[in-house]
Amino acid sequence: MKTSKIPEATIIRLSVYSRFLTQVDQRGVVTISSGEIAEGVGVSPAQVRKDLAYFGEFGTRGVGYNVKDLHRHIMKILGLNTHWPVVIIGAGNLGTALSMYGGFRERGFKIVGIFDNDPQKVGYKLNGVMVYALNDLEKVMKEENVQIGIVAVPAHHAQEVANILVETGISAILNFAPKVINVPKNVEMRNVDLTVNLEILTFNLGLSKDKH
Amino acid sequence: MKTSKIPEATIIRLSVYSRFLTQVDQRGVVTISSGEIAEGVGVSPAQVRKDLAYFGEFGTRGVGYNVKDLHRHIMKILGLNTHWPVVIIGAGNLGTALSMYGGFRERGFKIVGIFDNDPQKVGYKLNGVMVYALNDLEKVMKEENVQIGIVAVPAHHAQEVANILVETGISAILNFAPKVINVPKNVEMRNVDLTVNLEILTFNLGLSKDKH
Repeated sequence: MKTSKIPEATIIRLSVYSRFLTQVDQRGVVTISSGEIAEGVGVSPAQVRKDLAYFGEFGTRGVGYNVKDLHRHIMKILGLNTHWPVVIIGAGNLGTALSMYGGFRERGFKIVGIFDNDPQKVGYKLNGVMVYALNDLEKVMKEENVQIGIVAVPAHHAQEVANILVETGISAILNFAPKVINVPKNVEMRNVDLTVNLEILTFNLGLSKDKH
Repeated sequence: MKTSKIPEATIIRLSVYSRFLTQVDQRGVVTISSGEIAEGVGVSPAQVRKDLAYFGEFGTRGVGYNVKDLHRHIMKILGLNTHWPVVIIGAGNLGTALSMYGGFRERGFKIVGIFDNDPQKVGYKLNGVMVYALNDLEKVMKEENVQIGIVAVPAHHAQEVANILVETGISAILNFAPKVINVPKNVEMRNVDLTVNLEILTFNLGLSKDKH
């Protein structure tokens, strides 16, 4: 895992701030204070200022932040001032669901191909996205200048698929298979653990039970 | 959002520690130090000790933690010393993918029903899980003692489905729709944002580009 001085929690909050700023901007608001951002997203004003301070000086004391400027700046920090072509490996239910997930498109991620070895799927379109054979991965990645791959295959195929992505020159992998996969240090890797979200809920259910 | 003194990041790490302890236990290890846990999961030993200290005294100075005891204790903290029946609303690709996600079962979450109003799906089984009409939600929730519901419908139906879950007496909702939904304060809510994971990757890709 790469270490940088910016905590991951800050990056996640920047993503939340930018969504909130999009809404605020659409309502025609021109300037906003850290307190208003804090209230809008449910963190403390000090946290907002601390998160933004990692990236230099923003805003004017007593006036606040210009909404459009701050939004543009955060999007640039997140690397979202550009479009990212993405490939998905696995045309099963999860791969299909991810290919049509509206949240990706909204933030500039475009699924340019789904890869699978099932001959009943290859050559057909899923929600407007072509399903290719894995053999075509290198060709599509080059043509579309793809740096990000999503692994959406069963756990027992995850490492094998990650190896293929690495050999084909991927820069970053998002792994949805509930299995740890290993990649070289120069490849960015992130495991999405869907279960941990349920565990935060059960922890909180325990807390609220204790209260009553 | 409910506020408690335990940071959410700590809960997420407890979940990671418990998975690591499961593996360590399976290898027959009896005691483990905070340093070994730290190395195994990629955080600092001080962080491990700080996270565990929220929940009282563990371990023996100079000896470390008993693996089985610590694992059992963390699972109890997370509310995972019991099985949780879960319903999924939406029998589309995402609902189907979630119903067969192996990670849920491993941690004691059991999908007891998928609910949808599509007559072509109701009455059939998906990966061994029955698809019911939404009208049957109350009956199934009572019979199976369900407290947790997963929203896996398109964004424009998410609020409507959340309202139905709330009216039926759900305690906690995990929302996969890329849309903020509102629930009463006594219902635990968690939005799963699949896009933020890609944004952490693009942020890190930007960092590594700056380095070269």
